[in-house]
Amino acid sequence: MKRRDLIRGIGIGAAAVAASACGRRTADGGHGMSTGTFTWRLVTTWPPNFPGLGTGAVEFAKQIEDCSGGRLKIRVYGDGELVPAFETFDAVSGGTAEMGHGAAYYWKGKVPAASFFAAIPFGFVAQEMNAWFYQGGGLELWQEAYAPFGLLPLPCGNSGTQMGGWFRREIRSLADIRGLKMRIPALGGEVMARAGATPVTMPGSEIFTALQTGAIDATEWIGPYNDLAFGFHKAAKFYYYPGWHEPGPTLELIINRRAWDALPADLQAIVAACASATNDRMSAEFMARNAEALETLVRDHGVQLRAFPDDVMQALRRFSAEILEENAARDPLFRRVLDSVQAFRARMTPYFDIAERAYLNSRG
Amino acid sequence: MKRRDLIRGIGIGAAAVAASACGRRTADGGHGMSTGTFTWRLVTTWPPNFPGLGTGAVEFAKQIEDCSGGRLKIRVYGDGELVPAFETFDAVSGGTAEMGHGAAYYWKGKVPAASFFAAIPFGFVAQEMNAWFYQGGGLELWQEAYAPFGLLPLPCGNSGTQMGGWFRREIRSLADIRGLKMRIPALGGEVMARAGATPVTMPGSEIFTALQTGAIDATEWIGPYNDLAFGFHKAAKFYYYPGWHEPGPTLELIINRRAWDALPADLQAIVAACASATNDRMSAEFMARNAEALETLVRDHGVQLRAFPDDVMQALRRFSAEILEENAARDPLFRRVLDSVQAFRARMTPYFDIAERAYLNSRG
Repeated sequence: MKRRDLIRGIGIGAAAVAASACGRRTADGGHGMSTGTFTWRLVTTWPPNFPGLGTGAVEFAKQIEDCSGGRLKIRVYGDGELVPAFETFDAVSGGTAEMGHGAAYYWKGKVPAASFFAAIPFGFVAQEMNAWFYQGGGLELWQEAYAPFGLLPLPCGNSGTQMGGWFRREIRSLADIRGLKMRIPALGGEVMARAGATPVTMPGSEIFTALQTGAIDATEWIGPYNDLAFGFHKAAKFYYYPGWHEPGPTLELIINRRAWDALPADLQAIVAACASATNDRMSAEFMARNAEALETLVRDHGVQLRAFPDDVMQALRRFSAEILEENAARDPLFRRVLDSVQAFRARMTPYFDIAERAYLNSRG
Repeated sequence: MKRRDLIRGIGIGAAAVAASACGRRTADGGHGMSTGTFTWRLVTTWPPNFPGLGTGAVEFAKQIEDCSGGRLKIRVYGDGELVPAFETFDAVSGGTAEMGHGAAYYWKGKVPAASFFAAIPFGFVAQEMNAWFYQGGGLELWQEAYAPFGLLPLPCGNSGTQMGGWFRREIRSLADIRGLKMRIPALGGEVMARAGATPVTMPGSEIFTALQTGAIDATEWIGPYNDLAFGFHKAAKFYYYPGWHEPGPTLELIINRRAWDALPADLQAIVAACASATNDRMSAEFMARNAEALETLVRDHGVQLRAFPDDVMQALRRFSAEILEENAARDPLFRRVLDSVQAFRARMTPYFDIAERAYLNSRG
């Protein structure tokens, strides 16, 4: 994909194009304001109004309506209201809906490299994700990866560093991981398998019962805000950190390319601006609500917070690197994106270590 | 100020109002798109096109024009092009310009509590600032603080954790701080004075010569991206971290209240969305460019990176707490904002410590 197409398509550079394009699209003579009204469908991978994620999608839609003076109306659908959660990608690709909100790693069966655009084990935190997308070539790679499906992606939210998960028994060393049955999907699951656990996948709605009955020994989900709502503390006592498998998951907006191309330039600019604003706002919401919920879990529910032991973290780090390399050997785009991530990290880490990380550690 | 006024005014809640208000403001019948064109002036505290800050203001203005299809045109002025940098606040308050972009701590002579809305010593990092503004009551306090001046503020960018500064001689212990003449303004300067240094203030343009001639022994400025451009590495060898005095400085947008009230609801929503998008985008730019510049400084210019010694950090932390309390004793609003910050921090820190901080430290 040529640089010109990327910029033409969407996102950071769209503004530059919008100003020139809008003159052709509108007929009001004096300025670039477009006329005509559009009604779009936004399907999501979240239960309707799911805290932070589903509500964030609703606020995103509302902000677009407000900015456009009602010229672009968005109807938001939760999981199953128009299509099931995991058909979001196909629904937007095929035009059943014009937009979707979810997380890119859900589509790794179709696009092996997709995980990079949400989260990979021992990957970037939220600010690093944004820096890589906007300044480090990440968004261009993402657009390239989704182009064959007629989809344009944009970052549209971040849940912050997740928790390591809920465990029914304490983990004292790597030996305690072996034989564990844990709900943990995607690359994180592959890493846990190498550590000797049995990873299982199941929809969020089934996790609580599985954990309570002992059908599984452990589960990861999101963070305190969402985990408290699901009541996992009633089924497992030990809450582990850090969330090495999802250190800064980006939520994605996907847009049907034909629908995008039919949109006037000013409405394109509004969609891109509101996605970026949602990225800004959703991180702040997760920070504040996670902190509030963690306080409740520890103070009111006697949850035991635990750091993963050092030998566990060392093993998970090593296995994560192996799993990434093995995936890269199987898929050329996965290789290219991994190279991009590693090059960006090599430059970013020395700075972040002496800036925010050093400061956080200095607060005591 | 009543909650209703806050929401009516601006920002996060503006969306809800916009949808109902726009019907009254427009005459197109079918939807809420407003008509009419506005031309606004945006004055900034930055030199024209200053990297990251000035360029960020220009991109913000361009995004508004694109989203509005040219109905809201913004002319951006650098320091001295319409008014001098430090008259930005008065110029927007008095209506000489409709908007301003700068940093709130510049106005602490008028509003003692203003520093909280940019950065305070040992305060919040960027993500915590956003969480406090959007979810912790920070934005409401900021709006209250600026209301007497007819100004509406919004977060509009963040430079990330700054550097501790450039020093001509190595700092081995607290004793080496005593007698130092250092360019460091605002609350950070008060803290350094208590540590035995002599803080001085001077415009950015004068710092290099002062440092090179030995008129000052040290200076803080921003971070590698901007510091490299100013060439401080040619005048001082030791580059200290972390930037305890500005851990996550928020850049501000200020809007003249009368101009805001005259703006149709859809254009109000666009201004608010683009401020939030700028907050998202500018952080990412500083992250990436700071990392790049740090690499250049160390690799090509032999800059010596140093952490402040532990006894220096401990003393600065203690003095910072004292200075904040003393300021609070003199000003009721400063007291209320400090209480808000401390309450929010007490809840936020236990979470952030086990989430992002724990993860960053686990990467090795």
